[in-house]
Amino acid sequence: MSDIRKDPLTDTWVIIAPGRAARPHTKEKQKEEEVKKCPFCEGEDVESQIMPYAICAAEFDEDGNWITRVVTNKYPALSPAAELKKEDLDDTFHIEAGVGGHEILVESPAHKYFSWADMPPKQIEAVLRTYKCRYEYWRKDPRIAYLAIFRNYGKVAGASIRHPHSQMIATPLVPPRIQNQMNEMKKYYQKNDECLMCHLIDLERRKEVRLVAENKDFVALSSFAPRFPYETWIVPKKHNSSFDNITDKQIENLAPFLSDLIKRFDKLLNDPPFNLILQVSPLKEKNLPFYHWHIEIIMRLSQPAGFEWGTGVYINSIAPEIAAQELKNEKLRDKNDK
Amino acid sequence: MSDIRKDPLTDTWVIIAPGRAARPHTKEKQKEEEVKKCPFCEGEDVESQIMPYAICAAEFDEDGNWITRVVTNKYPALSPAAELKKEDLDDTFHIEAGVGGHEILVESPAHKYFSWADMPPKQIEAVLRTYKCRYEYWRKDPRIAYLAIFRNYGKVAGASIRHPHSQMIATPLVPPRIQNQMNEMKKYYQKNDECLMCHLIDLERRKEVRLVAENKDFVALSSFAPRFPYETWIVPKKHNSSFDNITDKQIENLAPFLSDLIKRFDKLLNDPPFNLILQVSPLKEKNLPFYHWHIEIIMRLSQPAGFEWGTGVYINSIAPEIAAQELKNEKLRDKNDK
Repeated sequence: MSDIRKDPLTDTWVIIAPGRAARPHTKEKQKEEEVKKCPFCEGEDVESQIMPYAICAAEFDEDGNWITRVVTNKYPALSPAAELKKEDLDDTFHIEAGVGGHEILVESPAHKYFSWADMPPKQIEAVLRTYKCRYEYWRKDPRIAYLAIFRNYGKVAGASIRHPHSQMIATPLVPPRIQNQMNEMKKYYQKNDECLMCHLIDLERRKEVRLVAENKDFVALSSFAPRFPYETWIVPKKHNSSFDNITDKQIENLAPFLSDLIKRFDKLLNDPPFNLILQVSPLKEKNLPFYHWHIEIIMRLSQPAGFEWGTGVYINSIAPEIAAQELKNEKLRDKNDK
Repeated sequence: MSDIRKDPLTDTWVIIAPGRAARPHTKEKQKEEEVKKCPFCEGEDVESQIMPYAICAAEFDEDGNWITRVVTNKYPALSPAAELKKEDLDDTFHIEAGVGGHEILVESPAHKYFSWADMPPKQIEAVLRTYKCRYEYWRKDPRIAYLAIFRNYGKVAGASIRHPHSQMIATPLVPPRIQNQMNEMKKYYQKNDECLMCHLIDLERRKEVRLVAENKDFVALSSFAPRFPYETWIVPKKHNSSFDNITDKQIENLAPFLSDLIKRFDKLLNDPPFNLILQVSPLKEKNLPFYHWHIEIIMRLSQPAGFEWGTGVYINSIAPEIAAQELKNEKLRDKNDK
């Protein structure tokens, strides 16, 4: 069983998850691609014991076949069976039971759509609808404070299985990065009576130097202070603090927008490893006027080292203005080719 | 020229360092070991243009040959030539000039001592004395707020050159991780009239479950909430907030202590990649009663992925109590072998 601990010296939280040491990942490392049977592929799921972990087939086609489905991670970092228990040991060490959930969203029965550059936008729509459905599900559990949804692409970015999948981790606490955003954005709102992100969208659309792309409902921006090269934010134009408020129409516009963006990364950086991360408000706080949900995509082309881990400051050799220009040119080049 | 930017949404600081894109590292990746000439080796330094970057030969032997020396990083993240300039653009974007320093400490003329498991403790002493000398040096520059000293070991941990070396980055701001430690430790001190780390040392020595080793002047602990497996802290028993207050006697005791510890990691984890990081008080605040300098060693056996980057929460599959026991057993096994 996992536990959650706070570092007494900082506000860092760590999930100690001994069950995850058994993952094939930690033992076989660079060999995953040699594995013949994929546990997420149709037909292999029973044998590989994935089926007993299945929570729901989130989407079906007209013939009753599943389009996306959600399964419990076989090596969960947190578990819904744990009892919520907080403890202060010696007035110094704070520890909590590892209550929560760790799910895999199998994004398609087809193994080949590992990259969203290859996945049809209609399939990406189904994935986004499943994200929405999991936010709605976990919001009902009073023990859960936050749902982290992310997609690791490539081994360097943490993906141990190639079959297209996202992960969802439900936590009993609001993570420090989100709390940090909440604090900064609330401060800005109180001072300016405006959402900081709404202001940023407006500013970046006028300046254009860090604007990568936009459509009716979304903008893609190179972040002003990117921790990683080509860090890009996808932000809904209309203010909204929670992903589960997204409309069907917005999902229809978001899927091809993401598909196009991933294709540009693919061409510009030669199929790079990346993490795609949803940043949303805590589950217990809906419809906040100061928080604005968004997606962050971070390229994993460099590894943070001693400096970053020791200071919390990041070194990035690609200025976001250059990154935005390169991503824009990728689109222009594409158009000229046609 | 670099600049330093604050992410408007969080308290994250990023150094945008376009000059570092030219590093051989980013272009050649996994090939460094094929490079025939090492720029840090005696004799090769003139040709490789390292010599013009040399600041000082920090230590000499009796024949006048250098033992350790400090050179400016050829691809510096920050530069002392930059003018200190802070700017708020649009009331949203905060940016500063990349003032500071980025130095390499070449730890020995001998290429073969890459691992401190192989370096004679007397040589490690010289390295530690050079650390002390750089803290003393940068403390005199009124523009500099912090000096980050760290040692990346292995490619995965960020080392692009094998020749034994540490890095030193002098920053014009107090890094968020250090500020965070300062805040938490100050709070504890104000409440308990005792340094939190002094309290921790006392507690961990009595409990023994996370105590890895101790000698007259130092303890090695498995951190209570380790971000990485086998994360170990080396802490001076006597309260001290700054590394440059270290005595010659303490350095004599620290060098073999570190050597022994690295040997245990080496045996237990098969020569693992790691970052060794000094954590000290800000340069402008000396002799603080609440801050306690220490060294953190983090094994780089797993890569943080979407969850960690999106939340700031870490998942670690090795409990620190297990890690401490394994590191202790390594020593016992060693003794039994003799």
